[in-house]
Amino acid sequence: MNIPKPTAERLSQLARLLEQRKNKNIPISSAEIEQLTGWPSNTIRKDISTLDMRTQISTTSGHDPVKLLEAIRKTFGLTNVVFKCCIVGLGRLGSAFLDYAGFQESSFTLAAGFDSNVNRVEILKADFPLYPTFKMKEVIARVGITYAILCVPPTQAQATAERLVECGITGIVNFTPCILSVPQGIEIENVSVIDALGSLTARLAATKTKTRSEL
Amino acid sequence: MNIPKPTAERLSQLARLLEQRKNKNIPISSAEIEQLTGWPSNTIRKDISTLDMRTQISTTSGHDPVKLLEAIRKTFGLTNVVFKCCIVGLGRLGSAFLDYAGFQESSFTLAAGFDSNVNRVEILKADFPLYPTFKMKEVIARVGITYAILCVPPTQAQATAERLVECGITGIVNFTPCILSVPQGIEIENVSVIDALGSLTARLAATKTKTRSEL
Repeated sequence: MNIPKPTAERLSQLARLLEQRKNKNIPISSAEIEQLTGWPSNTIRKDISTLDMRTQISTTSGHDPVKLLEAIRKTFGLTNVVFKCCIVGLGRLGSAFLDYAGFQESSFTLAAGFDSNVNRVEILKADFPLYPTFKMKEVIARVGITYAILCVPPTQAQATAERLVECGITGIVNFTPCILSVPQGIEIENVSVIDALGSLTARLAATKTKTRSEL
Repeated sequence: MNIPKPTAERLSQLARLLEQRKNKNIPISSAEIEQLTGWPSNTIRKDISTLDMRTQISTTSGHDPVKLLEAIRKTFGLTNVVFKCCIVGLGRLGSAFLDYAGFQESSFTLAAGFDSNVNRVEILKADFPLYPTFKMKEVIARVGITYAILCVPPTQAQATAERLVECGITGIVNFTPCILSVPQGIEIENVSVIDALGSLTARLAATKTKTRSEL
């Protein structure tokens, strides 16, 4: 199944919204989702229709939140699997993830942290073990870590990504401002505040042009 | 102009790649971009063809990097404008941006930081002024800040977003795990490590299915 990226992003956020919702068993309508997210309700209905569904999710009173969440997780290959992740680079940004609440109730868990600075590894506190970088290969293999969250300084980004691939990591969330080059079969997801600001600006410019031409 | 989101994201990253490249005047080919990024070269050519171009960017020896960068900035509404941004919430994550190198050479600049904890505001060091949250309205108006980078705890996310909109902010980069609801005309860009990991997983699952069906 090939889901368009914007749909995948909305469904992923919808899953988080359903997880956070207090009335977990009351049907949720597309109009209610529109109110909570700002996405047009027909876009939401279209997104939901792309899901891999065995049972009926939607009735006239709305979507069944439990079934909907299950269908999103299933479509994304997230059922009953917890993917182990590691943080690589424990500077200001990397250490910010040590107590990040978002991992609870997600399909991902932090299993290790690495930093080349041995002192930093000893001083920082986390609910999972922290190691000096030279132990990376052994730990990733032993613990069965799949993904890395890359937070090293820009000068070390490419070299560290290559080492992570050698260690058997198949996906990297890249928080460095560098564009990484990796072998085929390895996936990179770039997370950049600058790209996010650029995307905001492009969308606000598009809205302005639209409004002007509608006058 | 309405650019599809994946194209906008690739072009935004391509701009960063061109900014980081050492040989800023030597033509860059689509094949070279493919090698650096992993995107198929025909996708890159298609992306570049969506740009708003007055002069010829591409010849047989490749794309002119200076003209290409200019065309991307122009299409995104980023020429000669620097958008002022503020960080709201200076905990571990928010304070990680105080010395983030990615803002250099970008169209965005950090102009202020806010935190409800007055002590934190006084202790932290930055190249721009930090203020207690109650000064938000006055500072945003006086300095002419357009965007906010939201890093407050989840419990304060929605209320802070509403206050930012009241202060005149038109775009929010949301680093909290909450789904924010804002009035029409205000843009939100969610940045979530969990969504990034979900996106990686969905793409790796799609690649696996593809490989299997090709056997």
